[in-house]
Amino acid sequence: MFEVPLKRGRKFLNTPGPTNVPERVRNAMARATMDLSDPEFLNASESCFDDLKSVFKTEGECIIYIANGHGAWEAAIANCLSPGDTVLVPETGNFSNSWADMTESMQVNCRTVMGDWREPTSPEAIGQALADDKNHEIKAVLLVHTDTATSITCDVPAVREAMNRAKHPALLMVDTIASLGTVDYQMDAWGADVTVGASQKGLMCPPGLGLVAINDKAKAAVKASTMPRRYWDWDTRLMTQHYRRYCGTAPQLAIFGLRESLDMLFEEGLENVFTRHRILAEATHKAVDVWAQAGGIELNARDPKTRSVGVTTILTMDPDFDASQVSVMCRDEMMVALGGGLGKLNGKAFRIGHMGDVNAPMMYGALGAVEATLSYLGIPYTPGGVTAAIEHIAEFKKSAGHSTF
Amino acid sequence: MFEVPLKRGRKFLNTPGPTNVPERVRNAMARATMDLSDPEFLNASESCFDDLKSVFKTEGECIIYIANGHGAWEAAIANCLSPGDTVLVPETGNFSNSWADMTESMQVNCRTVMGDWREPTSPEAIGQALADDKNHEIKAVLLVHTDTATSITCDVPAVREAMNRAKHPALLMVDTIASLGTVDYQMDAWGADVTVGASQKGLMCPPGLGLVAINDKAKAAVKASTMPRRYWDWDTRLMTQHYRRYCGTAPQLAIFGLRESLDMLFEEGLENVFTRHRILAEATHKAVDVWAQAGGIELNARDPKTRSVGVTTILTMDPDFDASQVSVMCRDEMMVALGGGLGKLNGKAFRIGHMGDVNAPMMYGALGAVEATLSYLGIPYTPGGVTAAIEHIAEFKKSAGHSTF
Amino acid sequence: MFEVPLKRGRKFLNTPGPTNVPERVRNAMARATMDLSDPEFLNASESCFDDLKSVFKTEGECIIYIANGHGAWEAAIANCLSPGDTVLVPETGNFSNSWADMTESMQVNCRTVMGDWREPTSPEAIGQALADDKNHEIKAVLLVHTDTATSITCDVPAVREAMNRAKHPALLMVDTIASLGTVDYQMDAWGADVTVGASQKGLMCPPGLGLVAINDKAKAAVKASTMPRRYWDWDTRLMTQHYRRYCGTAPQLAIFGLRESLDMLFEEGLENVFTRHRILAEATHKAVDVWAQAGGIELNARDPKTRSVGVTTILTMDPDFDASQVSVMCRDEMMVALGGGLGKLNGKAFRIGHMGDVNAPMMYGALGAVEATLSYLGIPYTPGGVTAAIEHIAEFKKSAGHSTF
Amino acid sequence: MFEVPLKRGRKFLNTPGPTNVPERVRNAMARATMDLSDPEFLNASESCFDDLKSVFKTEGECIIYIANGHGAWEAAIANCLSPGDTVLVPETGNFSNSWADMTESMQVNCRTVMGDWREPTSPEAIGQALADDKNHEIKAVLLVHTDTATSITCDVPAVREAMNRAKHPALLMVDTIASLGTVDYQMDAWGADVTVGASQKGLMCPPGLGLVAINDKAKAAVKASTMPRRYWDWDTRLMTQHYRRYCGTAPQLAIFGLRESLDMLFEEGLENVFTRHRILAEATHKAVDVWAQAGGIELNARDPKTRSVGVTTILTMDPDFDASQVSVMCRDEMMVALGGGLGKLNGKAFRIGHMGDVNAPMMYGALGAVEATLSYLGIPYTPGGVTAAIEHIAEFKKSAGHSTF
Repeated sequence: MFEVPLKRGRKFLNTPGPTNVPERVRNAMARATMDLSDPEFLNASESCFDDLKSVFKTEGECIIYIANGHGAWEAAIANCLSPGDTVLVPETGNFSNSWADMTESMQVNCRTVMGDWREPTSPEAIGQALADDKNHEIKAVLLVHTDTATSITCDVPAVREAMNRAKHPALLMVDTIASLGTVDYQMDAWGADVTVGASQKGLMCPPGLGLVAINDKAKAAVKASTMPRRYWDWDTRLMTQHYRRYCGTAPQLAIFGLRESLDMLFEEGLENVFTRHRILAEATHKAVDVWAQAGGIELNARDPKTRSVGVTTILTMDPDFDASQVSVMCRDEMMVALGGGLGKLNGKAFRIGHMGDVNAPMMYGALGAVEATLSYLGIPYTPGGVTAAIEHIAEFKKSAGHSTF
Repeated sequence: MFEVPLKRGRKFLNTPGPTNVPERVRNAMARATMDLSDPEFLNASESCFDDLKSVFKTEGECIIYIANGHGAWEAAIANCLSPGDTVLVPETGNFSNSWADMTESMQVNCRTVMGDWREPTSPEAIGQALADDKNHEIKAVLLVHTDTATSITCDVPAVREAMNRAKHPALLMVDTIASLGTVDYQMDAWGADVTVGASQKGLMCPPGLGLVAINDKAKAAVKASTMPRRYWDWDTRLMTQHYRRYCGTAPQLAIFGLRESLDMLFEEGLENVFTRHRILAEATHKAVDVWAQAGGIELNARDPKTRSVGVTTILTMDPDFDASQVSVMCRDEMMVALGGGLGKLNGKAFRIGHMGDVNAPMMYGALGAVEATLSYLGIPYTPGGVTAAIEHIAEFKKSAGHSTF
Repeated sequence: MFEVPLKRGRKFLNTPGPTNVPERVRNAMARATMDLSDPEFLNASESCFDDLKSVFKTEGECIIYIANGHGAWEAAIANCLSPGDTVLVPETGNFSNSWADMTESMQVNCRTVMGDWREPTSPEAIGQALADDKNHEIKAVLLVHTDTATSITCDVPAVREAMNRAKHPALLMVDTIASLGTVDYQMDAWGADVTVGASQKGLMCPPGLGLVAINDKAKAAVKASTMPRRYWDWDTRLMTQHYRRYCGTAPQLAIFGLRESLDMLFEEGLENVFTRHRILAEATHKAVDVWAQAGGIELNARDPKTRSVGVTTILTMDPDFDASQVSVMCRDEMMVALGGGLGKLNGKAFRIGHMGDVNAPMMYGALGAVEATLSYLGIPYTPGGVTAAIEHIAEFKKSAGHSTF
Repeated sequence: MFEVPLKRGRKFLNTPGPTNVPERVRNAMARATMDLSDPEFLNASESCFDDLKSVFKTEGECIIYIANGHGAWEAAIANCLSPGDTVLVPETGNFSNSWADMTESMQVNCRTVMGDWREPTSPEAIGQALADDKNHEIKAVLLVHTDTATSITCDVPAVREAMNRAKHPALLMVDTIASLGTVDYQMDAWGADVTVGASQKGLMCPPGLGLVAINDKAKAAVKASTMPRRYWDWDTRLMTQHYRRYCGTAPQLAIFGLRESLDMLFEEGLENVFTRHRILAEATHKAVDVWAQAGGIELNARDPKTRSVGVTTILTMDPDFDASQVSVMCRDEMMVALGGGLGKLNGKAFRIGHMGDVNAPMMYGALGAVEATLSYLGIPYTPGGVTAAIEHIAEFKKSAGHSTF
């Protein structure tokens, strides 16, 4: 929009990924590279494969790719499906659509259960689509747990129940890229067969690792797949040699970073991590609700129960206003990076990330910058959003005694 | 106060020193140590001695000690004074008192011009004390530019003028530890003979370097001094060999950090640095003024013109309340470190630092945490302080176009 | 082999990848993550795509994958070939075999031109295999420039000439993972259509980036390919949006590392980089030749002209001796990590890496540890290898005046 | 000597301080600054004061100055002596002379027991000087344990015994700046009253911390001292408040570095640390002995029992040759920094450091560069020095089983 002048002080990162990398993770990665067979590396690597299971809450297998979340998406497709297969994609927002788009590039057909981007796709509609699939052409349901474009988190157990009710054998594949490590996710208990994740959101690492967790049903599906693959191939990835597990050279420093972030998650306790995210998200919603009283903006997710704990999508109400100004201005003038509107919300929304290594004053800073940006851009807003956030958090802390943020 | 639980996210550092070390400075120091005669080091060192002059605004000489600000204080005493000498110390708060205390340990007598800690010491009273010193027993005036205990910045040119009017030959020694790099300071134009500084405040470096700038009059004073000294001695410190300049092994990594921080100051432009500090200080004052409407707290510095741009001292009004709770609670529960009350303000005040590598959202975060702490501790306050700060900064940015924060 | 005790001092990394990451690259990566659309990142990224062309010496396009070298291999296959196609693979050692193995997993047939692992595959034999392919079933020749298992560098222009002589339309795909940035490679001038590389060898970055350079003929091949793909797909990777170029979230910190390593390569000058590698390699060969006089070991590559400048494979002559002891002992007891024998050289060879950010005393250290290991393990050797290396380098420096190592 | 071209690979640091800072120490310091009263800092600081006692092997008190070793020297003088006092300084080389020079600047008289720089000062001569001091004018003996200029380590217990035999009440002050953490030093058992140290040698930290350990007799001496002082003053330094212990702002990041280095020393085990230094020193001596056969150079320390384990001084025999060329050339052309000749050895010697975080291949690298420099400069030498070093270390490892280097 304009030339960006030199700025001082720390940039705030409130995009919904990449998120802030904690000092401990950064330093864990700021080490010398080493022999790929160095026991120091092998021990770290081995333990990451093990401990990721506790994060996914599965007894299945975890696989770590040098890749981003899209790579992990492709891995799920490449291993469980064959060209010509069909999958069902409940529309949750831009990311369900992107996964479907990728799936079609892999020569797999997609059927979509339409959604309106302000509510989760109805489990009933999903169940109906499966019930209608008498011949069981649908091989998998591709479900995005939290779609960061809409900031809606869907109800995975309800979808699983709908699948069960339809007595449909399709695999349930869940994308938790934007939810893992921010909100409870129980792969085994909830009946997911494949779960996809990534390093740069709730796991507080730099981008660069794609994650997949699979159960026995998913492993069996590999045998039936005719998709050409090696890099993504689970059979070789599940071998014992680390050179095989990474299909070549391991992402050594990234693994030391992941090791540190897992330690941090376990030290804090996953339940505390989830509570921290929930309270900070609620505080953000309180702030937006105050600002919204003037009619210029509105939370995208209608039902509070469906709102993501990691990111909040806010609609701008003036149809003639280009909402992309908000994130550009906030980043270039206020030192806080937000997310913009994606897909059909492009130019109509902005997004505040509050996931990963984040605490209360970091959110006050980000919300303060948003309030200043609303003022700066002349968007109608009621002042006092940050005050509402502060009071919500102060109330929680009073009631909870100590907290982790 | 209580056991501190594990916390997540970035700790906010709003003490008035040490301040936040920018990533660039940290990385400049995260390098391999090297031969003390390595040209890479010698060039960095040489240029620091030169460029510090632009920060002090002097044509005199700069000296860099491996020490803290107290060390630089002692250097000023050890070089310009002799046991049995007398100095005049205008009371500005806890730090003028500490400097006087150190001076007496050096066997130099101190006369104090009393102050009330809420206004700068009167230049008239200083002038009178000098006029009363007919025999010119007073060898130096020891003036603290910004006393971080009271957060009052005094008027150096006015003190110089009072000295001139009294036609008194005393040296003017100014402590700019808490002001250098945050607000304009013009050593030569203002007539200071010795200026003392340190690395860990406006200069954005870790603690570990004490700085002194001296003019010819100060250099001449060394010849008359009988104080035993070598480590602090300016004569050897002004030699050309770097081994002499540091009186032994140089603080190599700290110098690379200082080099980077000087680059950052010059890139931003000192005037922009000062404006940034001023606006963030004003925003802090606006926030406190809102909170103060309920009568529970009050700004210590009565006259807005005398308020430090780097730190704000806030009095708690309830005489039965232990104000040290504020900084402890804010740090342990809200993730924001504040300063406590010092000297006679111990238990009666807390302090918010806003100096060095700081920007608007960092201040919203800190102020939000303070507001939450007031709520948490039940101190009467009017909500909306952060809102006032946001509006002040947004107005500035609207009027200024681009800013550096 | 045995429990590894605590060790002090710097571990030497003389595996042929990952190589030592220079301090500058490490610090370039030790920065805060940021918005994916932050101009600071986009500028770094854009310039990497451009500047990699100078490293590959091509006017074609460069693609950066979050992946390792195996991922880049798969990208070459997935874009230019279709299931059922056939390729020709000259056997250079373990890595040609691995690439072939991956190719077959992608449902592409491999014909191998056999090699003996101590000489490069004969260009004549390659030409003959192509001439025999009257129907042009072979769609591509997959050539490993430097096979780190054998430490032999093959003559790419000679292979290209053999293809031309056979008037065969196959694509020439060259793996430069272990050679790029260590020895001259001229993609366009030598007639390669696809070149594969990776970050963790001559480019001095941590593992995590796979690189591909392609010309127009390769781009055209994508249109004909029926291979299911998206993550690897060149059509989307060549779009202008960086989100497309990385197929999702960019490997932000790794890109800042690559940016720094490219700056370092250009500052030193590629020709100087190549000379440095050559002299250090020759010094290594001199050392081995001295040790080998006792008959216990031998250089694998018979012809000095074919020896890699980045890694040296050394055979142990006693058929009953398990050569894997050498690298284990050298790493665990001597603090220097070597490579082991791979494929059919497993247990029969060890490898000394000398690529990337390496200089003369680093090699003296590594060679000294190898000499000590030969002594420790009782392998017959003639002492004085390091002396020979020192003399070779001293002679070069005397003749060259200044050098870059 | 000439313009230094760009160099690649890691610079070797073989000066006798500063020494290599291990990755762990560097990362311990690459952390955010924090509130001076943050429990995380206070705990680290407290434990450093405690654990330093185990390094000095004393039950006395330890004091940590923001200063270098010269600062710690001055602290010893300023606390235990008064202007007009007299001390005895056994001449060990340049550093005994420098300490004496500083002492005289502090208005204390020095009597020197002359030494020839190639043998330790004779304990008998020291005893005689004390016996001659019938009136006990000598208040302290200032003894340098290892003088890095001569690389001679003196026999502290023998000096103590000479003092005892003379029944002289002088304090024994020992400078262990260059020996602490490299060789056994037992402050209490050996009867030292004051010990001086620094961070940047055996303690593997960057320069910036001066250390002093004192016993009750030294504490008592403070009461009698009339030296003006505050920064160095032990009475205030021994208070409980950390703000007092550091006389102002603490060197926060340096303390975290020291904490890590102490952990590393204790993990390795002090006895192992000493053995490691001894073997590497012996290997260096072996190398020099081989080179010296050609008559161009010679070890300075005649008696092997007196040779420092941390640094080796080597004389050049040609009186017309300027030995400073060796260290300049080795640093600028061979990437290895050595020490030059100091004091009367200026231009006549060079020094190889082997202290701190150092291991065998690091020494092979340094020695290889020295051998290449001898060749480059045309200094007569017998090749094979590195070979001798390798063999010495290999023999040790064979006999010792596992070692820590």
